[in-house]
Amino acid sequence: MALYLTEAEVTDLLTMEIALESLDEVFRARSEGKVGNIPRSRLPIGRGSYNLMGASWPEAGIVGHKSYAAGAGGASFHVMLYGTNGEGLLAVIEANRMGQVRTGAASGIATRYMAREDASSVGVIGSGYQAETQLEAVAAVREISTAKVFSRTEERRTAFAEKMSAQLEIDVQPAESAAAAVRDADVVITVTNAAEPVLLGEMLGMGAHINAAGGNSWMRRELDTHAVAMSDIVATDDIDQAKIECGELMRAAETGHFSWERLVRLDRIVSKLRRGRDNDEQVTLFESQGVAFEDIAVCNRLLQMAKEQGVGAELPG
Amino acid sequence: MALYLTEAEVTDLLTMEIALESLDEVFRARSEGKVGNIPRSRLPIGRGSYNLMGASWPEAGIVGHKSYAAGAGGASFHVMLYGTNGEGLLAVIEANRMGQVRTGAASGIATRYMAREDASSVGVIGSGYQAETQLEAVAAVREISTAKVFSRTEERRTAFAEKMSAQLEIDVQPAESAAAAVRDADVVITVTNAAEPVLLGEMLGMGAHINAAGGNSWMRRELDTHAVAMSDIVATDDIDQAKIECGELMRAAETGHFSWERLVRLDRIVSKLRRGRDNDEQVTLFESQGVAFEDIAVCNRLLQMAKEQGVGAELPG
Repeated sequence: MALYLTEAEVTDLLTMEIALESLDEVFRARSEGKVGNIPRSRLPIGRGSYNLMGASWPEAGIVGHKSYAAGAGGASFHVMLYGTNGEGLLAVIEANRMGQVRTGAASGIATRYMAREDASSVGVIGSGYQAETQLEAVAAVREISTAKVFSRTEERRTAFAEKMSAQLEIDVQPAESAAAAVRDADVVITVTNAAEPVLLGEMLGMGAHINAAGGNSWMRRELDTHAVAMSDIVATDDIDQAKIECGELMRAAETGHFSWERLVRLDRIVSKLRRGRDNDEQVTLFESQGVAFEDIAVCNRLLQMAKEQGVGAELPG
Repeated sequence: MALYLTEAEVTDLLTMEIALESLDEVFRARSEGKVGNIPRSRLPIGRGSYNLMGASWPEAGIVGHKSYAAGAGGASFHVMLYGTNGEGLLAVIEANRMGQVRTGAASGIATRYMAREDASSVGVIGSGYQAETQLEAVAAVREISTAKVFSRTEERRTAFAEKMSAQLEIDVQPAESAAAAVRDADVVITVTNAAEPVLLGEMLGMGAHINAAGGNSWMRRELDTHAVAMSDIVATDDIDQAKIECGELMRAAETGHFSWERLVRLDRIVSKLRRGRDNDEQVTLFESQGVAFEDIAVCNRLLQMAKEQGVGAELPG
């Protein structure tokens, strides 16, 4: 009785609101020690990599994993969910779209608990596939009126601005530079595959919240060390993963400008054990790693909706 | 165009001979550094555990993982295979039967390269699901004429002896004790979930080869330290895993009766870089951990056969 959900079915079922609800709930559960996690492992394949990560949430009755093979020909993501009480396999879910929404939603949760309450402007660096859901998630948790986007190719940033203006019904404008996109922004999003920093400390204004959501690799940095050092509160969804994959924190720590002791788990902030910010002047930073418990939480909700609505094909066996 | 294979389809397709061929090939590839592996991770769920492990074999064009949720209600195993050249998902394969055969085949490979050439008798301790394929695999690589089996419940060992006598066309007899099963056996198999040793060094004769294939946990031991210490050559399919899960080697090492430096990778023996035994008097020991590259190698062959024979259902998407 396990279900298979395709990309098209997931796209129809999943909204940002649902992903935000799922993540809010699973972060609270994690803070209570009720969520297990298997960090991402990678194996090189051809011109890409294979990734495997798992998580359990027994209270919600689920355990499972996300796997993906990413290479020159694109990427193929799947989540498998099992029941924790002997139910066996519950679902195989195509997870490209799901991952895009959940990664946006993780930044949305960070923004909800770390950005200034009156945040109304967003600066986005990057205009790819993942940038859309980042902006959508921020706009879902704050009253955003304006956004500026910078990416290296003018046509792409212009297209992004037009598309997202229409979709979110806010004023999204292309910017000529990263500095211009970020200037005076209450919330800053970096979502690039840049190897060298695109967000410099000198671009940031007082009170900004940053979501650093670009590619995870110790070989890459989206922020310079100045931007890390001037962040009063630095949070992440997974400290273990950040220590081996978050290039900007690793470099800042190695050069004495950041201490791992300062790094806060986002789930502690969501559950109010730690504060996301102390006042409106602080700079706050969320380093998004992307963790399997986020995937299984969103997929669990997807599965419930699919069953209620009769969506999805039953697997043989 | 990904395929889903059910337990029934796998059972029809998979023979011990095919599993032995697949493993022989993948062990050789591993010895040449051409196989990647992600060790097993576990998360507790309910009254059982969830397990996740992965591997890559780019030369064969595959990467993937095995996952299983094992608990009071039984276990549910699946392997997913992806292509390494952008093909995306290739197959989801139900893997209970596959795992039983591949675990037998791993002991078969060890027996092929480590047991005496003239080995003709087998002693089996354990009469469960996994014991059948252990004996079948040994009988596939040596001219076995007799086997004795011991397990605690008389009905079960008698039923095992009858079933396997008929299936393998050799003389399989139940034994009254572990010592009686093992006495004078050229090949000894332990395949139990025993917490305390069932195979003692004092039971072993000269020249025996042992396949220790029971449940992996540092809390369990199938062999006593004497049996480990008297083994002249000790091999395993995964050294990293053995160091954290092989209770008998861990205890022998901790008490100074075994050195991890002595532990040999089975793939080195298969590829003739190391000898499986030096003479007919030595005692040899294979500590089976169960590794994901074994799973993906066998599943790759299954997938090829399924495609050739038009077996399996196509997944949506």
